[in-house]
Amino acid sequence: MSSADPDFAIVGLGLIGGSIARDLAALGATVAAFDADPATLDDACTAGVVRRPLPASLAGAGCARAVVIAVPVTAAPGVLLGLRSQLRTDTLVTDVGSTKQSIEHAALRQGMGEQFVGSHPLAGDHRAGWSASRPGLFRSTRAFVCPSPRARNDVVQAALDLWRTLGAQPTLTTAAEHDRQLAWTSHLPQSVAYLLAAAIARSRADRDWLGPGGRDTMRLAASPPELWTGIALDNAAALGHALAAFRRCTADLEQALADGDEARVRELFDTARQWYCGG
Amino acid sequence: MSSADPDFAIVGLGLIGGSIARDLAALGATVAAFDADPATLDDACTAGVVRRPLPASLAGAGCARAVVIAVPVTAAPGVLLGLRSQLRTDTLVTDVGSTKQSIEHAALRQGMGEQFVGSHPLAGDHRAGWSASRPGLFRSTRAFVCPSPRARNDVVQAALDLWRTLGAQPTLTTAAEHDRQLAWTSHLPQSVAYLLAAAIARSRADRDWLGPGGRDTMRLAASPPELWTGIALDNAAALGHALAAFRRCTADLEQALADGDEARVRELFDTARQWYCGG
Repeated sequence: MSSADPDFAIVGLGLIGGSIARDLAALGATVAAFDADPATLDDACTAGVVRRPLPASLAGAGCARAVVIAVPVTAAPGVLLGLRSQLRTDTLVTDVGSTKQSIEHAALRQGMGEQFVGSHPLAGDHRAGWSASRPGLFRSTRAFVCPSPRARNDVVQAALDLWRTLGAQPTLTTAAEHDRQLAWTSHLPQSVAYLLAAAIARSRADRDWLGPGGRDTMRLAASPPELWTGIALDNAAALGHALAAFRRCTADLEQALADGDEARVRELFDTARQWYCGG
Repeated sequence: MSSADPDFAIVGLGLIGGSIARDLAALGATVAAFDADPATLDDACTAGVVRRPLPASLAGAGCARAVVIAVPVTAAPGVLLGLRSQLRTDTLVTDVGSTKQSIEHAALRQGMGEQFVGSHPLAGDHRAGWSASRPGLFRSTRAFVCPSPRARNDVVQAALDLWRTLGAQPTLTTAAEHDRQLAWTSHLPQSVAYLLAAAIARSRADRDWLGPGGRDTMRLAASPPELWTGIALDNAAALGHALAAFRRCTADLEQALADGDEARVRELFDTARQWYCGG
């Protein structure tokens, strides 16, 4: 690595990529970055966060110590393709998407399995974009780290170190296990927030009659639909399975209400509270 | 009203009743109160919030300027029964429950229609009990005020004044309209939070893998199941209708995911976001 090489190359300066760039720059690292929105890239350079703006070809990204792909999951495989011809063999390639199997498959297909380690920090938010990015976003959050089956130990360590540097607690797992579990703990709640808002919208109920509880339950409905359409389709099988199970629970409650079956309603609510409160 | 009569009598010193008592006492009013838990009543007296503890018979409550029933919706009709024989005709009787038709019917049945005005402040929370009650809980919140069809104008005004005194913004409506709308904007979100937690509990997913978004979506699952079992059953027809519509939305999303139909997934998420963000 020449002294002119950047320490990190970040592709996409949204909430996650922008926050990573801010923290790394604050720690003194040289950050190179690209964003499809020229104004965002300008802002990040003016703020002193990005030292080297990258062109759309990403030329120059491949000689960084680590490349972080922080674009929507549907766009991430295309970024890998752009990097392939220029990557140094000791560079860690990671991403931050909410699904981990499709990007891993893309990395393996492109012969980048040895240096690819998928990541997913649980720091998502209903806000989005560079303007929502901020220092310290990852402090004390969990970051899933999913090494490809071919990943070298040194790049796995580099991925773990990166998240620790950002203050996150890395959890090692596989891409398959990640996607199976996150279908339940993230993609299902996100989908349900959208479904709840969509169902109420169709009912023409008065939005002003929402209380603080209802608003919180649907807070994720403010999340960017384009981002989540991609995630939902990318994990369609596992999410579909979770949605079907959830729909059966809903039908159970409807039946219990129709029957006036107090014990059954109560049991369902008790199970829920006990699990949520960690009992 | 003799000078020895309390200004307000509050039955139930939970989150809502306790917070009302705190605010009224802070404004210099004489508060009489009963709570089924003797320790709670003792605490409220020791804190100087309740000046007159009431017995289980509620003897003495009926000569207050206003009686506020702040017990679970299933217990509220029984409180009306206890008050009936001792009520002065100029006393406002109100409640704070999340359903408004059943308590109004009970008031009418017991010949208390002229002085009964149902209330429902949108200040509920997943926390409960006297220990969760606090000053200023109603500041800037909406309070639905549902006069019985026979209510006299002076008691309606007294109910509106009470909520304004507590800092809330009263919204006049009918019990039927309240229950129909709140099935969508409150009882459905609450039920969905329980259903989401129950479905994930059954899946045996790892609770530690929840992110901040998933946790917020299910925050209401920490609410007291006994309270919400009563509310759900008390508004079973309207809530069942809302749950069925919501379940059909869920099935739509499952189908769109199974078909890989990006446009349909996106349209659903867009509808949701637009409604939630007030677009």
